[in-house]
Amino acid sequence: MQIRIEKDLLGEKEIDNSSYFGINTKRALENFNLGGKTVNLNLIKEIALIKKAAAIVNEDLKELPEDKAEAIIKASEEVMEGNFNDQFFLSAFQGGAGTSTNMNVNEVIANRAIEILGGKKGDYNLVHPLNDVNMSQSTNDVYPTALRISAIRSIRRLSSCLADLQEELQVKENEFSDIIKLGRTQLMDALPMMVGQGFGAYAKAIARDRWRIYKVEERLREVNIGGTAIGTGLNATNKFIYEITDVLQDLTGLGIARSDYPMDVTQNCDIFVEVSGLLKSLAVNLLKISNDLRILNSGPVGGIGEIILPKVQSGSTIMPGKVNPVIAEMTAQVSIRVISNDTAITMASSSGQLELNAFTPLIAECLLESLELLEKTVIIFREKCIKGIKVNEENCRKNLEASTALATALVHYIGYDKAGKLAEKALKEHKTIREILYEEEVLPREKIDEIINPYQLTKPGIPGI
Amino acid sequence: MQIRIEKDLLGEKEIDNSSYFGINTKRALENFNLGGKTVNLNLIKEIALIKKAAAIVNEDLKELPEDKAEAIIKASEEVMEGNFNDQFFLSAFQGGAGTSTNMNVNEVIANRAIEILGGKKGDYNLVHPLNDVNMSQSTNDVYPTALRISAIRSIRRLSSCLADLQEELQVKENEFSDIIKLGRTQLMDALPMMVGQGFGAYAKAIARDRWRIYKVEERLREVNIGGTAIGTGLNATNKFIYEITDVLQDLTGLGIARSDYPMDVTQNCDIFVEVSGLLKSLAVNLLKISNDLRILNSGPVGGIGEIILPKVQSGSTIMPGKVNPVIAEMTAQVSIRVISNDTAITMASSSGQLELNAFTPLIAECLLESLELLEKTVIIFREKCIKGIKVNEENCRKNLEASTALATALVHYIGYDKAGKLAEKALKEHKTIREILYEEEVLPREKIDEIINPYQLTKPGIPGI
Amino acid sequence: MQIRIEKDLLGEKEIDNSSYFGINTKRALENFNLGGKTVNLNLIKEIALIKKAAAIVNEDLKELPEDKAEAIIKASEEVMEGNFNDQFFLSAFQGGAGTSTNMNVNEVIANRAIEILGGKKGDYNLVHPLNDVNMSQSTNDVYPTALRISAIRSIRRLSSCLADLQEELQVKENEFSDIIKLGRTQLMDALPMMVGQGFGAYAKAIARDRWRIYKVEERLREVNIGGTAIGTGLNATNKFIYEITDVLQDLTGLGIARSDYPMDVTQNCDIFVEVSGLLKSLAVNLLKISNDLRILNSGPVGGIGEIILPKVQSGSTIMPGKVNPVIAEMTAQVSIRVISNDTAITMASSSGQLELNAFTPLIAECLLESLELLEKTVIIFREKCIKGIKVNEENCRKNLEASTALATALVHYIGYDKAGKLAEKALKEHKTIREILYEEEVLPREKIDEIINPYQLTKPGIPGI
Amino acid sequence: MQIRIEKDLLGEKEIDNSSYFGINTKRALENFNLGGKTVNLNLIKEIALIKKAAAIVNEDLKELPEDKAEAIIKASEEVMEGNFNDQFFLSAFQGGAGTSTNMNVNEVIANRAIEILGGKKGDYNLVHPLNDVNMSQSTNDVYPTALRISAIRSIRRLSSCLADLQEELQVKENEFSDIIKLGRTQLMDALPMMVGQGFGAYAKAIARDRWRIYKVEERLREVNIGGTAIGTGLNATNKFIYEITDVLQDLTGLGIARSDYPMDVTQNCDIFVEVSGLLKSLAVNLLKISNDLRILNSGPVGGIGEIILPKVQSGSTIMPGKVNPVIAEMTAQVSIRVISNDTAITMASSSGQLELNAFTPLIAECLLESLELLEKTVIIFREKCIKGIKVNEENCRKNLEASTALATALVHYIGYDKAGKLAEKALKEHKTIREILYEEEVLPREKIDEIINPYQLTKPGIPGI
Repeated sequence: MQIRIEKDLLGEKEIDNSSYFGINTKRALENFNLGGKTVNLNLIKEIALIKKAAAIVNEDLKELPEDKAEAIIKASEEVMEGNFNDQFFLSAFQGGAGTSTNMNVNEVIANRAIEILGGKKGDYNLVHPLNDVNMSQSTNDVYPTALRISAIRSIRRLSSCLADLQEELQVKENEFSDIIKLGRTQLMDALPMMVGQGFGAYAKAIARDRWRIYKVEERLREVNIGGTAIGTGLNATNKFIYEITDVLQDLTGLGIARSDYPMDVTQNCDIFVEVSGLLKSLAVNLLKISNDLRILNSGPVGGIGEIILPKVQSGSTIMPGKVNPVIAEMTAQVSIRVISNDTAITMASSSGQLELNAFTPLIAECLLESLELLEKTVIIFREKCIKGIKVNEENCRKNLEASTALATALVHYIGYDKAGKLAEKALKEHKTIREILYEEEVLPREKIDEIINPYQLTKPGIPGI
Repeated sequence: MQIRIEKDLLGEKEIDNSSYFGINTKRALENFNLGGKTVNLNLIKEIALIKKAAAIVNEDLKELPEDKAEAIIKASEEVMEGNFNDQFFLSAFQGGAGTSTNMNVNEVIANRAIEILGGKKGDYNLVHPLNDVNMSQSTNDVYPTALRISAIRSIRRLSSCLADLQEELQVKENEFSDIIKLGRTQLMDALPMMVGQGFGAYAKAIARDRWRIYKVEERLREVNIGGTAIGTGLNATNKFIYEITDVLQDLTGLGIARSDYPMDVTQNCDIFVEVSGLLKSLAVNLLKISNDLRILNSGPVGGIGEIILPKVQSGSTIMPGKVNPVIAEMTAQVSIRVISNDTAITMASSSGQLELNAFTPLIAECLLESLELLEKTVIIFREKCIKGIKVNEENCRKNLEASTALATALVHYIGYDKAGKLAEKALKEHKTIREILYEEEVLPREKIDEIINPYQLTKPGIPGI
Repeated sequence: MQIRIEKDLLGEKEIDNSSYFGINTKRALENFNLGGKTVNLNLIKEIALIKKAAAIVNEDLKELPEDKAEAIIKASEEVMEGNFNDQFFLSAFQGGAGTSTNMNVNEVIANRAIEILGGKKGDYNLVHPLNDVNMSQSTNDVYPTALRISAIRSIRRLSSCLADLQEELQVKENEFSDIIKLGRTQLMDALPMMVGQGFGAYAKAIARDRWRIYKVEERLREVNIGGTAIGTGLNATNKFIYEITDVLQDLTGLGIARSDYPMDVTQNCDIFVEVSGLLKSLAVNLLKISNDLRILNSGPVGGIGEIILPKVQSGSTIMPGKVNPVIAEMTAQVSIRVISNDTAITMASSSGQLELNAFTPLIAECLLESLELLEKTVIIFREKCIKGIKVNEENCRKNLEASTALATALVHYIGYDKAGKLAEKALKEHKTIREILYEEEVLPREKIDEIINPYQLTKPGIPGI
Repeated sequence: MQIRIEKDLLGEKEIDNSSYFGINTKRALENFNLGGKTVNLNLIKEIALIKKAAAIVNEDLKELPEDKAEAIIKASEEVMEGNFNDQFFLSAFQGGAGTSTNMNVNEVIANRAIEILGGKKGDYNLVHPLNDVNMSQSTNDVYPTALRISAIRSIRRLSSCLADLQEELQVKENEFSDIIKLGRTQLMDALPMMVGQGFGAYAKAIARDRWRIYKVEERLREVNIGGTAIGTGLNATNKFIYEITDVLQDLTGLGIARSDYPMDVTQNCDIFVEVSGLLKSLAVNLLKISNDLRILNSGPVGGIGEIILPKVQSGSTIMPGKVNPVIAEMTAQVSIRVISNDTAITMASSSGQLELNAFTPLIAECLLESLELLEKTVIIFREKCIKGIKVNEENCRKNLEASTALATALVHYIGYDKAGKLAEKALKEHKTIREILYEEEVLPREKIDEIINPYQLTKPGIPGI
């Protein structure tokens, strides 16, 4: 292992010369030696993108000489392509509001740019991580801006996956629109409904999620790049501030906009709480749907068993033939994870102090994890669970017929109290409501047949009491 | 105490004849005998409003005779006016998805309507709680509709209070726009800023909250009234379903809209998670702001002491003269309460099963509490805390001058590393950056004076590195 | 309304002369005018108890003259008896770390003591709220000590209720020890078990809760009374510090102990997080049990329907005869509330700063609510739900026989893969495992009968693979 | 890439022949293709340990032939040593209650054992993943048992780290026992105290955490191994059940005990909620302490600046010389993460249904992450933060002297109200309390000097009011 020596205000440090990162990263690796989760690589990519954008602007403004700027731009692109992923393994829970991650990117780009210019790693006279790569920037504007861009890209992908899920649920709504079953409230037998109606209700919920998540992008677009350390923009010229967002727009194709009050964006994290809160709404819907599917799929014979989830793997190491609703269970667990990430994001965001929130690394980790997990989960849930759902029509019929759900239709004709007594009688004597009505001759047979028509009962327009 | 006997399917029950509620409420009081929080009275009012609306429609549709309908309408209005508040003390944590609360309203209205018609409480042949007062309705459409209406009204009030708070913060932004102070990141001395800028950043955050909360009303407007038990609308005629939302619009003046898929609205509670999530964003901002104010107000002499919060009460039973930032502390505690209510709303909402969520009483309690507490808190915070804030200019000046914050301005001229060394020196020798610069003759005096101009440093446009 | 004028450092205030509270309470009522929850009256009682104890000690130490001390003692006892409950309606979310509540008690006791001594309310020369009633104390030691005492009393009651619940579950374990049913994992048909075994598992979980909650009292016993403002004990003599805990022991009969490091107890709230965490464990068990009961009770005919929960009230305003598991639902909602209270307690406790935690009022409110709700809930859950549970033996038998659960017993004899194929076949052909085994002649009939004995399968000792 | 074909009930699958895992793992990798966190390797190790233990017992009971058993034992040991870590990359959020992870271990061990016996991977006639490696076990007893063992080991390490942290805090308590400073309540100037006293209070809190975490091991020791699928022990002989815990004790050196009611341990997860709740108490203390240190360290000149945290890295990419409290910030973020993991553990644990909790993979991931992060954090916090703390005595003195904290000592002599007025006067006129007392001649000079002795005021025994 070859060694190079780097220096900072605290002293010297030996760096393995194969490393593109330098002394700041090295110290941070030692300081935050927690093991476990490292910084999200999608965030790294967006930071590199900002470095590229800043170099473009600084070249244009003649703050950086052309060759240096071009080397930085090239090095940034290589980082964005993932060529240097192995240089980024700082803890996701690092202190310092993301400074170490920003320095990690600055150092890797500087050393790679030095190489491009024909120099040797560590020769920061050629390209300096701070003076050149970080020129006109501060962690406090770079990091939140990168996080916003990363979140927007993820949100777009998620939104599109949700559209697919909604569509698949509507396919099921149609596919099962003619199969009647028992509806349940509080898990107790209630009124008849179509199997398809249930999937329609799920589709509506997912449609709301899609809309919410799609719309929140607007508020994420406002970035504080150019605000530097506390939002006042010290060390960034007015020209830089104006140009950098334009360049970011060009490079990303996203509607990135300069905040008109960067000090606000630098210190306030409520937007991340908002996004996470919306992801939590989605998680709540996914939990509800996946739990419902598990209940309806329960059995296969000793449960409700009205639907059959696709079999995707063996379910037990001991019970042969057992198949479990594992995709629904995965979906539920990811949903809970998203909810717990929201706890972290909420606490971290509320812990901002004065001109900065020091806990943005935790916010970034949790928010990006939630977004990425949800995206994958929504795809898998659709493909491996929803798509292949079948209905067990026999069980649907049996459960409905045995129930006293149809007694509700009688309320209009004989009143609530009397209908209740007939329902009780049917249950006690293991008879259907229709049989009891025939026996008791409460109404003429034809009337009974007209009223006790479950298909009719799944639509509005039947007179109530 | 006079007694009347009422009956239901489970048997008979003695009711104190002064009570307007009947056997269903009585049983529920015994079953959910938890003590503590009772059902929110604003929710009761909106349920009574729906009873009034239903009676209007049923009268119009000739389902209810005029005298009965009018008695129900009158009785509902009396409940809405709060005349029967003492009849509503069921536990907020009742089981049954709100059925007991709905029955409580049905029974009180029925008995009051009976009285209006000249009858005696309990004579349900005159007006029946279910057959008449609850006609064409189910708890499962009445309750969520009432909750949405109540939430909308609260949201409007809150939104308006937030506008006032934002305005007050902007007043402070202007008032303190010329007072310079030290900005801090990670609680450490950073760059100079205007005191007013900090308040401006708060105003921006609150403006976002206001916008978010204002906009979410749209999604709350969709109601499932007419969907009855599971959203299929059994026992409600098409005419009823169409008319009832029109009548509700008239009575409330709100843009209430019939859901095109009531089964969705009946079973899915994601909208409450969304609203609560937005309230949580507001709570996070209030926590941040109130904590900042407490830090800046710390002292009066042994802390940062740059602002002075209004004195509203004595602070200690033992330390004479001590005054504490009690309004900011109240604000913080309410914020935490709102965040914890969100936990309950999230868990309860994710616990819906099939065609209903049984835990709507908990959701209602927590959501309405959050809304009401926030409304009051935002008012008090503005009036008793923000409005009277004063700045301790001397402390602002002292803290800024002693700091090395101004060294950042040097980076452009002498590079990051050298500027860092000068800053360190200044700290060690208890001198100001200016003094060190003069001593070291790093730059000509005039240049130093030009660069080390803190007022200039609070604005963008100073060239960076 | 007669008026009296009171004064403090901030100026004068008119007080309705019928009020026993004075200017400090009055200001606090105006400052924390939130509506909603007021301070828990059990906490008020324990604060009054501490006032009594302090007066006893101060009388003994000759710091207070006998007549004054006796008047304070008598007034404190009257507050403890609840005679002045209407004087305590400060917001539960008040700022000031409980100072206002402490002053509320000081003022009510002072004015009542003044009356006892023949004076007129407001004549604080006779008895002074601070100099006399609060003598040698500070809110910062009184309040946490009162909270601990209140929590201990509540914990003892809860622990005893849990013992009863455990016992009732064991009664059911025995009652149903001979009824075989299908066990389910991941809601899918698994292996046979006795109905009683399920209740035994619940009893074990509750037994752990009881133990945990019983044991945590130890750590609550350590109090900081005598530590005064920051734990250093300024303004309390050594004699006072020693005697006060002895007197508290006498008055409460609890093993109250003086902390050997009051500064710790004054500022650290981890003990409340610990207690709340244990209550959360109980809540998790109650959620699990109540949800299980709802699943097993689902139906009555269109669900699993293996148990029948007691009917405690009508379940629907629209579906006649419907009965819902409302007690289990109440239990679940209270459990969620307890979990959300834990969120508040955790955030509030982690927000302590330096020598004090300013958010103790929120902690107190949430902790005492959780304790009180759980106590009531455990009683109701036992009496109105567990006690009356019946088993539907027919459904138990049907579900078991139809399932392929028994195939697991074959693994030892024919291997996992072959057993799995037979199970699949049985399901497809709607036959029982036994029938398939007979048909396929996999093993001799007698062997089959020996192996496929569900009763045998509910016990260990059957050879595995 | 060489391929082998494996089969299960769902059909055939191509497996890269270099893989030690088989078709079950392969399907799970495809099903749970979430990216992100994979199963904790410490959990894998403990599952392998159980496989080894089971093979030992099965060999002893002659259920497994010696050569097969020995091959399984050897293969298990190699997995425990980490040689096959690259074979375990299933998602941490997998569905199926851990079945896929158990199968992953079964398959890797089977294939490695096959190799050891001279066979080729995939030739399960030699060693079968289920019939042999999983003999007498089920995921539902293996997985929770492994999780408990892993948690115990982690708890022991954490407990020991906490002892070191407590000790280090006590070192600071002693080191700073003579330096007087201003104590603060609600961030406002309160009473004098010794710097060391503050560290003593932290040490007490950490001592409680250590005790709690140490004690909870007791309840984790009870394992359900031998209970198999639902706790009834089907497919495990009595001999196996008894011997396996003995072997586990031998292999681990831990006091592992057989649960007397395995059905309870299989389905109830309250113990994980309890452990996580205690970790949350620790997190709350760490948050409190780390936040305090950040407040006391604030500055260096524009804040409180009474302590100086060790400098471990440069703090800013833009402000030269800035150093931030990054270790305290890391500690705070990890604490928040632990709190959010508790949310996940709570929700997942409360979601158990009937005989199993399907969400154990999420519980395991979060619990083990919390334990491992806390262990590392406690070490780093001690070594890189606490150990090197220095006190800025000058600032301590300045802050104390300027404050009116000492006025409290006057209450005993001149009453609360008069003392309050003097304190106010001192503040207004920028004088010390002593100066005001001299001026006002409230008491003789000697008496004043006697009372206004800050050192005296940090100890109890000064007479109060």
